[in-house]
Amino acid sequence: MNAKPPDPIRPADDAARALARRLISEARTGALAVLAGPEHPFVSRVAVGALSGRPLILVSRLSQHTTALTIRPACALLLGEPGPKGDPLTHPRLTLQGRVEAVDKGPHRDLWLAHHPKAAVYFDFADFIMFRILPDAVFLNAGFGQAYTVSPADLAGA
Amino acid sequence: MNAKPPDPIRPADDAARALARRLISEARTGALAVLAGPEHPFVSRVAVGALSGRPLILVSRLSQHTTALTIRPACALLLGEPGPKGDPLTHPRLTLQGRVEAVDKGPHRDLWLAHHPKAAVYFDFADFIMFRILPDAVFLNAGFGQAYTVSPADLAGA
Repeated sequence: MNAKPPDPIRPADDAARALARRLISEARTGALAVLAGPEHPFVSRVAVGALSGRPLILVSRLSQHTTALTIRPACALLLGEPGPKGDPLTHPRLTLQGRVEAVDKGPHRDLWLAHHPKAAVYFDFADFIMFRILPDAVFLNAGFGQAYTVSPADLAGA
Repeated sequence: MNAKPPDPIRPADDAARALARRLISEARTGALAVLAGPEHPFVSRVAVGALSGRPLILVSRLSQHTTALTIRPACALLLGEPGPKGDPLTHPRLTLQGRVEAVDKGPHRDLWLAHHPKAAVYFDFADFIMFRILPDAVFLNAGFGQAYTVSPADLAGA
């Protein structure tokens, strides 16, 4: 039996928290993991509008992720797209792990269209609905070997 | 009660299959959804080497995704990064849904380093291990409102 290695995930410092906030504020899309069944993860791209550590997503009722979230609100969202150059695994990214709550999209219309001007075409379609992601845990990967836990409360005002 | 709308996901045609194969062959990273617990999805970025519809991933034993996969092999992998321009939701992407099997990384060394030259630094580290993703279901989103199911068998030789 080998001894368990030390936990490689450190608590966030100020620089890590600042990076997490930047990844949130710059995010326009993310990779959303949901449960298509109790032991059946699914992942798809979703549009994200994130002014805080509790991002909004606008999704179609016709999509698999929306069907899944309606039955099981547990989810995780990966933010931070790799750029076209360099090793993609050195690009920072953030995972928010938690659940969704349904929100009325109307009050968020201006914010959403400021982030996603082309969404004006479909924002008001009846099958498009909005959820807010409520993270219980946040993980920052700032690059190779640089993993941090971030307190969701520290991102609340991001 | 409203009637359920017709299923918006169509079976793939030749163009959809060709696009799915291209997304697989071009993928260098993906967003991997795993189960951190029985009802607890997690998502993170992983390096991908995909010559076929059963892609390889190289991951560290120190990472959360590897811990999860070791306990629960169910997963889903999103391939197809949005480019820097245009509406990210119009960029095509592919979800492979299934499970992983552990594979010996040694025989895949040359292939992996051809895809990921910078991985030469850590490929041989003992904590890096390889899995193959065995999809049970494949979904292509070719752009807004263009969703297809693809047969995993149709991608076997991609």
